[in-house]
Amino acid sequence: MGIAMVEHTTRAFDTDLQTLALKIAEMSRLDEAQIRQSIEAIMKRDVALAKSVIAAHDRVDSLQREIEEKAIVTIARRQPMAVDLRDIIGALRICNDLEKIGDLAENVAKEGLILIDAFVIDEVVRQLARMARLVLDQLMRVLASYERRDAAEALAVWRSDLEIDSLNNSLFRECLTYMLENPRNITFCTHLLFCAKNIERMGDHTTNIAETVYYIVEGRTLPDERPKMDITSLGVPTLPA
Amino acid sequence: MGIAMVEHTTRAFDTDLQTLALKIAEMSRLDEAQIRQSIEAIMKRDVALAKSVIAAHDRVDSLQREIEEKAIVTIARRQPMAVDLRDIIGALRICNDLEKIGDLAENVAKEGLILIDAFVIDEVVRQLARMARLVLDQLMRVLASYERRDAAEALAVWRSDLEIDSLNNSLFRECLTYMLENPRNITFCTHLLFCAKNIERMGDHTTNIAETVYYIVEGRTLPDERPKMDITSLGVPTLPA
Repeated sequence: MGIAMVEHTTRAFDTDLQTLALKIAEMSRLDEAQIRQSIEAIMKRDVALAKSVIAAHDRVDSLQREIEEKAIVTIARRQPMAVDLRDIIGALRICNDLEKIGDLAENVAKEGLILIDAFVIDEVVRQLARMARLVLDQLMRVLASYERRDAAEALAVWRSDLEIDSLNNSLFRECLTYMLENPRNITFCTHLLFCAKNIERMGDHTTNIAETVYYIVEGRTLPDERPKMDITSLGVPTLPA
Repeated sequence: MGIAMVEHTTRAFDTDLQTLALKIAEMSRLDEAQIRQSIEAIMKRDVALAKSVIAAHDRVDSLQREIEEKAIVTIARRQPMAVDLRDIIGALRICNDLEKIGDLAENVAKEGLILIDAFVIDEVVRQLARMARLVLDQLMRVLASYERRDAAEALAVWRSDLEIDSLNNSLFRECLTYMLENPRNITFCTHLLFCAKNIERMGDHTTNIAETVYYIVEGRTLPDERPKMDITSLGVPTLPA
């Protein structure tokens, strides 16, 4: 292959990567809006907003398919090696996690639709909003680390998931207490716990993205299991009196 | 390219496909065992079994990575077109869903560990087991349709997800009723509802696999939204008296 040919291939490959980056950026913005709005819909009991979050997920879905196709065509056409190949595998993995995060935000919005008419405990909703804000911060940080190919920052996000787990655990305990106190709270708390599980799982996908950024930059996967402290699925729950 | 060369490429490609198929079959068997054992662990309060389900997930994880790498290397080396390319994209998507199903079975096993010492309502656990058996049946059917490249059977599985939703809905109502009846039931029911959500989501991934089988065989995606009847996240729940 002549030098002109190699240069042409390299330029074409760069354009492919840029297209992928733009689509991932669009997906990221959609996810961020969906998380924000799904919680806002619950706090303001806003039916229209909840429905718009649910409707917006179609675009996230189709972006994932577009990224998947573009990535695969790029691999087949350009046959990239080493870091270039990692870049594309990374894009595939990240768009997959972004789709799942959008999916989870859609679930929260659906729970929000039920809570519109339910008896609601404001303090618990505020706690949920805090959790969502934390996940959103982490997500924005990890996506910035992806844009800058910053493995150290990705690692920092990966390590700080514990805070979300701890908020989730205290929300879980609180909800159990409210349910035990008064059966009136049971329906609301059950749905709110589903919301919290969805948000906690957004955090898990955020740490997946951190792992992918690390893999793209460093060419190897993170060595150890991420620290995890989820009493809602492993530890000892508050027992009924 | 001479005929000998084309034949060589075709044979090499077939070997690649076979390797992928073998790894997916191994993942499928692991998932099936994980679903079965996670429920058995809850029914028999078997700590060792629950822990072995949790431990087995590492192999599912590493199989997913192996399939992903093999698929991408195959695309880059063989530059497959049309149905061959769809086969590989399909393998990528299916191994992704199989990993998620294994993950969900792991979650069920973790909930099982909590329920070991909890007060348990046998009837509700039996209902959960029925739901799991239904999901397992669907999964085995859809994986058989994948092996046979049977789009009609995949479509049939895709359409029959409603039954799982309906079992999940009745389990949800039942649990709410038990919680309202006696606060003693709250901890158990909350964890059991988490189990049910995990199993319901296995069903969602099973229908994803059905969509992928259809795509591999037919070269197009399924036209309409799958029928969905999930009152636990959309409809009106039983309200406290």
